[in-house]
Amino acid sequence: MTRPQVNLTGIRLGLIDQSTVVKVVKEVTEEDRRRQALLDARPPLDTVLNMHDFETIARTVLPEKAWAYYSSASDDEITLRENRMAYQRVWFRPRILRDVSSVDWSTTILGQKSSLPLYISATALGKLGHPDGELCLTKAAANHGVIQMIATLASCAIDDILDAAAPGQTFFLQLYVNRDREITRKYVQHAEARGVKGLFITVDAPQLGRREKDMRMKFVGDDAGAEVQKGQDVKKDQGVARAISSFIDPSLAWKDIPWFKSITKMPIIIKGIATAEDAILAYEAGVQGIVLSNHGGRQLDTARSGLEVLVEVTAALRRRGYWPDPRFEIYVDGGVRRASDVLKAIALGAKAVGVGRPFLYAFCAYGQEGVERAIQLFRDEFEMNMRLLGARTIDEVVPDMVDAGSLAAHTVLTPEDNLFNQTYQPLSLAKFKEAKL
Amino acid sequence: MTRPQVNLTGIRLGLIDQSTVVKVVKEVTEEDRRRQALLDARPPLDTVLNMHDFETIARTVLPEKAWAYYSSASDDEITLRENRMAYQRVWFRPRILRDVSSVDWSTTILGQKSSLPLYISATALGKLGHPDGELCLTKAAANHGVIQMIATLASCAIDDILDAAAPGQTFFLQLYVNRDREITRKYVQHAEARGVKGLFITVDAPQLGRREKDMRMKFVGDDAGAEVQKGQDVKKDQGVARAISSFIDPSLAWKDIPWFKSITKMPIIIKGIATAEDAILAYEAGVQGIVLSNHGGRQLDTARSGLEVLVEVTAALRRRGYWPDPRFEIYVDGGVRRASDVLKAIALGAKAVGVGRPFLYAFCAYGQEGVERAIQLFRDEFEMNMRLLGARTIDEVVPDMVDAGSLAAHTVLTPEDNLFNQTYQPLSLAKFKEAKL
Amino acid sequence: MTRPQVNLTGIRLGLIDQSTVVKVVKEVTEEDRRRQALLDARPPLDTVLNMHDFETIARTVLPEKAWAYYSSASDDEITLRENRMAYQRVWFRPRILRDVSSVDWSTTILGQKSSLPLYISATALGKLGHPDGELCLTKAAANHGVIQMIATLASCAIDDILDAAAPGQTFFLQLYVNRDREITRKYVQHAEARGVKGLFITVDAPQLGRREKDMRMKFVGDDAGAEVQKGQDVKKDQGVARAISSFIDPSLAWKDIPWFKSITKMPIIIKGIATAEDAILAYEAGVQGIVLSNHGGRQLDTARSGLEVLVEVTAALRRRGYWPDPRFEIYVDGGVRRASDVLKAIALGAKAVGVGRPFLYAFCAYGQEGVERAIQLFRDEFEMNMRLLGARTIDEVVPDMVDAGSLAAHTVLTPEDNLFNQTYQPLSLAKFKEAKL
Amino acid sequence: MTRPQVNLTGIRLGLIDQSTVVKVVKEVTEEDRRRQALLDARPPLDTVLNMHDFETIARTVLPEKAWAYYSSASDDEITLRENRMAYQRVWFRPRILRDVSSVDWSTTILGQKSSLPLYISATALGKLGHPDGELCLTKAAANHGVIQMIATLASCAIDDILDAAAPGQTFFLQLYVNRDREITRKYVQHAEARGVKGLFITVDAPQLGRREKDMRMKFVGDDAGAEVQKGQDVKKDQGVARAISSFIDPSLAWKDIPWFKSITKMPIIIKGIATAEDAILAYEAGVQGIVLSNHGGRQLDTARSGLEVLVEVTAALRRRGYWPDPRFEIYVDGGVRRASDVLKAIALGAKAVGVGRPFLYAFCAYGQEGVERAIQLFRDEFEMNMRLLGARTIDEVVPDMVDAGSLAAHTVLTPEDNLFNQTYQPLSLAKFKEAKL
Repeated sequence: MTRPQVNLTGIRLGLIDQSTVVKVVKEVTEEDRRRQALLDARPPLDTVLNMHDFETIARTVLPEKAWAYYSSASDDEITLRENRMAYQRVWFRPRILRDVSSVDWSTTILGQKSSLPLYISATALGKLGHPDGELCLTKAAANHGVIQMIATLASCAIDDILDAAAPGQTFFLQLYVNRDREITRKYVQHAEARGVKGLFITVDAPQLGRREKDMRMKFVGDDAGAEVQKGQDVKKDQGVARAISSFIDPSLAWKDIPWFKSITKMPIIIKGIATAEDAILAYEAGVQGIVLSNHGGRQLDTARSGLEVLVEVTAALRRRGYWPDPRFEIYVDGGVRRASDVLKAIALGAKAVGVGRPFLYAFCAYGQEGVERAIQLFRDEFEMNMRLLGARTIDEVVPDMVDAGSLAAHTVLTPEDNLFNQTYQPLSLAKFKEAKL
Repeated sequence: MTRPQVNLTGIRLGLIDQSTVVKVVKEVTEEDRRRQALLDARPPLDTVLNMHDFETIARTVLPEKAWAYYSSASDDEITLRENRMAYQRVWFRPRILRDVSSVDWSTTILGQKSSLPLYISATALGKLGHPDGELCLTKAAANHGVIQMIATLASCAIDDILDAAAPGQTFFLQLYVNRDREITRKYVQHAEARGVKGLFITVDAPQLGRREKDMRMKFVGDDAGAEVQKGQDVKKDQGVARAISSFIDPSLAWKDIPWFKSITKMPIIIKGIATAEDAILAYEAGVQGIVLSNHGGRQLDTARSGLEVLVEVTAALRRRGYWPDPRFEIYVDGGVRRASDVLKAIALGAKAVGVGRPFLYAFCAYGQEGVERAIQLFRDEFEMNMRLLGARTIDEVVPDMVDAGSLAAHTVLTPEDNLFNQTYQPLSLAKFKEAKL
Repeated sequence: MTRPQVNLTGIRLGLIDQSTVVKVVKEVTEEDRRRQALLDARPPLDTVLNMHDFETIARTVLPEKAWAYYSSASDDEITLRENRMAYQRVWFRPRILRDVSSVDWSTTILGQKSSLPLYISATALGKLGHPDGELCLTKAAANHGVIQMIATLASCAIDDILDAAAPGQTFFLQLYVNRDREITRKYVQHAEARGVKGLFITVDAPQLGRREKDMRMKFVGDDAGAEVQKGQDVKKDQGVARAISSFIDPSLAWKDIPWFKSITKMPIIIKGIATAEDAILAYEAGVQGIVLSNHGGRQLDTARSGLEVLVEVTAALRRRGYWPDPRFEIYVDGGVRRASDVLKAIALGAKAVGVGRPFLYAFCAYGQEGVERAIQLFRDEFEMNMRLLGARTIDEVVPDMVDAGSLAAHTVLTPEDNLFNQTYQPLSLAKFKEAKL
Repeated sequence: MTRPQVNLTGIRLGLIDQSTVVKVVKEVTEEDRRRQALLDARPPLDTVLNMHDFETIARTVLPEKAWAYYSSASDDEITLRENRMAYQRVWFRPRILRDVSSVDWSTTILGQKSSLPLYISATALGKLGHPDGELCLTKAAANHGVIQMIATLASCAIDDILDAAAPGQTFFLQLYVNRDREITRKYVQHAEARGVKGLFITVDAPQLGRREKDMRMKFVGDDAGAEVQKGQDVKKDQGVARAISSFIDPSLAWKDIPWFKSITKMPIIIKGIATAEDAILAYEAGVQGIVLSNHGGRQLDTARSGLEVLVEVTAALRRRGYWPDPRFEIYVDGGVRRASDVLKAIALGAKAVGVGRPFLYAFCAYGQEGVERAIQLFRDEFEMNMRLLGARTIDEVVPDMVDAGSLAAHTVLTPEDNLFNQTYQPLSLAKFKEAKL
């Protein structure tokens, strides 16, 4: 494995000449050698036991700029971390003495089969971290019956991804709406024509967030970029995120939803709902689903986690008689690291959850194999946790199986009494004698 | 004391030929020498003042693999630690000016006398940590009138344990139900025939948990194993826990309970209840008791502590008029380290508590004497705490003596404002002048 | 930039002879050289991304005494830090799919235009930290349409500040009421005559707080001081704060408010309200506004944050039918570091917020340019956050956009179980092999 | 100042021959030299700004055994620290614009004048820490009009203390009730005859607590001991606390209260009440007051703080119409370090608070002068805080001045997600360039 070599292919939408692909070959630098040594020293893949392992390995082997872009979130990164903490505030109420000799964690998402109750959520600029970029996800997803959501800002052109698909493989499309709606129309209709099964319109990013880790690492190189931006005039002095945000339309509004329905038959999902009020509006707008998301903590800091919003949203929809409704699915994303997290979201009403960074880090660290290992780990955990929960199918994962009573508690400690803490001498344990070892 | 020498005796069930015992004698390795040096340096036993001391000493002197197996819990080990934290959320309301010149903390458990309101709970594979394995517990328990629960997965054969018993010594049996019910029937009936007084059926382990500490320490050696598994085909690449789980029946269900009642007259206790719903089912199934337990945090992570479940369970049983009922006893286990913990559980309705790892670590660190010291420490603490609580007998330990109002609060901090914390300069204390010492 | 040279000009009130200005020129000491080296090493201004950066840079470059005076707060500095923590307990409920192509965060304060919904709050003794003192604020404020509140204890004479103003620049005056009311009368009327637009009477400092950081750094030098104190007898052995408090009148009471109304037509604002009860008294006293403030944590420690008081105050005023009332504005100050903080206060009912130390540290670190950068950073954040909140104008920042349910929770951890914490071994991640880098 | 020389004077009760005093003069050891060097290096007394300073200085200069005895508390020392934390859960609601030019924080306690709303609470074995023992307290108390409570287990004989008193100086007596009531009767009547003004009967120590810090430092020397124990047979192998507990009567009960009333006219106060139930019994028993106390955390661990109990007690007494009642005073002790703490307790209904260890540490560190400095610091803080609270007298310190809504919240964090925490990379601040200093 060598340093990522990045294809700058331009926006193609299935109608672009493959011969325009420019292959950039770099000389091997000191930095490249250092990175190669780190890649050689990676832990064997079978010693990777959880998603945190992938992240910490990726952090070590990634170029600094890529790590900054991927890992950063907005302002104080409180929402980023809250996404994880929220899952810690939900506890299980497992049932016992049910025959769990066979358990099945497969489900459907927008009517499409999924071997796991999760999908690979969109993350941008995959080639910053691996030369094959998002194709690592595509091939692993094919092997395991998992659905991939293709990002508008993927490094790989959408057609490259779809060309690499296995027969019958399912994809969704994540959409940033362009200021030029004609570009958007073509992009959406092309995706539909090529068999994409769902359109996830991102609505929480009228402007891409201020991400300080990323900003401290100014985006001045020219060695990577989103496919869809080729040739556009991009402000490059405030990190990757600001650089790629210029073509997103901040005027997008509820009034635009009918237009989307007019240009595609794909189910439309609104991605980035953060309140019960907007969930109701989405239902009334006649879309097929919503993603309760804060964009991985990358947009409005101190926005609440999708998991917390889920409780508010299902209660509000239910009060109006809108839900449960098989034609309206609710997803959450952000902070998922364990199958147990997914099961908590499902117990609280989610149809499935989106998992983004963990798969991204998996391929940054080990390419396609990393993603396959990640899926395998989730599978092992689903088997274990469903047995231990006493749920044989996803339908048996019900609200009574969780205690979410602390989910809305946003606990912040009042400041410490530092003088007291410095003064107090903690207890200590029994002391060993000197040993010669 | 030398390095543990492990008896691989095979499953005997009282009918197995003693001559099959194979004594494995190892050469003295560098690792053995290192371990011996550590054993020599142990703190004198009378400087051990609490259960934490035993654990930290065991951690130092145990072979890494044994420590990993004993100490590990599932996933993020959150439930393991929550078991301890739960006791910290219950506070005492002690009564004063009662004549406490004599206090008595003895009780009965399933009608059997117990000098303390606790029993030695089942832990597996004791010979990983001490050559005498669970016999250390047996002999210490005999000397102090404490009841030992024998583990299905004990390193010592059940008959070796019962053979070592003092006259009239009381035992309970912890049962993993085998896929082959005939094996289970023989095992249970043999135990009953030999005088075991209670059958604790473990129901929270249809599959043994994913324990990452243990998994990182793959189980490839052949120097220890559970008695009951001899000659079985065991998958050995995922740590000790996975290796020993293969014969447990995941299809065990409520419908099987009558069968157990048909094969034994021993009281039947369901071990691993985690919700009020299942406590009600257990009562209605006509068993003699339940253990509110999450298997020491080793099964479903983020399951709640037994202590927290206790409050929910007693309230629900009481609402139905099922409880208090002298024919139905409630125990909790997990996280107990102090007599004060035990008293809190009793105040909240437990008949007794199970204590597992602390006694395990006590014998890993000091053999039988360690266990005796541990019992003595509990006894000292019971005397002290009952006096200070104003309770002269276990019956006087009542709900009003505790404030459990914070028990159900699962507090997780929202993420820190790291920049602020890095910026703020804490106060400091008055500074000494330079001193020549 | 050299070591601060301090003008000791005496109280002028616009009627004092400029020729009395004494310019103190110091020799260059070792300390000066050290400080100059630190100033030379400051991060480039465009790498400063937030207010915390300014504070940490100021801490490094400031003379110790100045840092101690500026950063210190009373007793255990709990309120100081609580001011920041309170903002962390309020979470956003952002709205989506609103056309946010243009957003406007300008507002009016006491009827005066302000380009941002915040004002520069009064801080004392600016020349301890920069030779130009508060003039840095004045010039930056002029360039950005921000209102400056002039401190009674500013190092720069009020007339020097007003002389430096741009045409039409708006100022407010912060007032410590003197024991000699004639001095106060002249001071207020002079300010009004020179065009100051609001009078903020500080009521939370009948005596200046015990600030231990400051006290440990006894104020024995003569190289800086508040303009208004020249020639007064000042006790100098308990830090800067105690030194400058001697002329403040502790007898100031509600009965004095009519007198203030009689001597000025400026709107009168009471600064330092900490309860709903006093907010009601203020409204009934007929003043034009209140600042919910604890004096930056520098007065009564463990007083609550202004943000928390805001919720209590608006509820109480509303219950009496006193509010909303366009003639009565509510401000808060303390702990603001992000535009998102400001928006939270506005959502909860504040008209604007006061920002003190961040601007002070900005000029201590970089002079006027630092303040301009700070304002620019706030502006960038307002643009971003209003878009992400779905609010196009300040009026659209409404209560439903925040969840303040945890704001009144003053969470303090019960003490840790240190023995358990020392005993528990945390999980670790997958390990890299040795790498040669 | 030299190493403490300890007087072993025997129990005298005012009737014992002074000539029996044995003066033990020790040779100067290496340890003595080390301690003298530390004493020489103490911070100048005027740089001591708060009670924590005294404690940290005492910790450094005290012999290890003395520090272990004084600082230790029972079991995990959770109650010890909770006593402090409880004050952090009460916040001020200060009032403004009241004329606070003069403030008065004096009060009466059991009808006796006290210059501060606190008394010096009983602590044992003062000569372990200073050769003059409790006389340091006596002389400082005389100079400042503060009441001293004399401990049964004081190192100084009660008559030595009373002999050293200034004319009219007020004392209370803390009483451990002896198994031999005749000894107790003589002791109490002697104290009354010598003018002691109140009898505080300790009821929370039927057996002295298990204090592990102290136990790790076995009490085998013979160089100090309580006056009242001379010649008694004392078990010396479990630390100081166990050594001195043998003569306390564990049978003391409510039925004994009338006997105390029959032997003395002093007001009787029950010290160690921990529940509303017992407060009611105390009131009904006709005593003059109660101390809500957990014995400085030295008896039953995880008992609640006196401050928290105060809220429960005043509510319960009030519900029965027992309180307010000028003939029944309520005190609290434990954890007080600031005048603001005292004011919080008073606002919540306490007549005064007991302060023990801070004064003990003050004299261990600086003798009588230390205690005087400690009193002075409290006085400065009372002046400041009453002004800032808007309370001119102790009577004006009312419940509305505090927010105790979080006082009963016993928050314990659920366990951390360690893998996530290890994985997450915190934000960092702007970096300085290299500087040559």
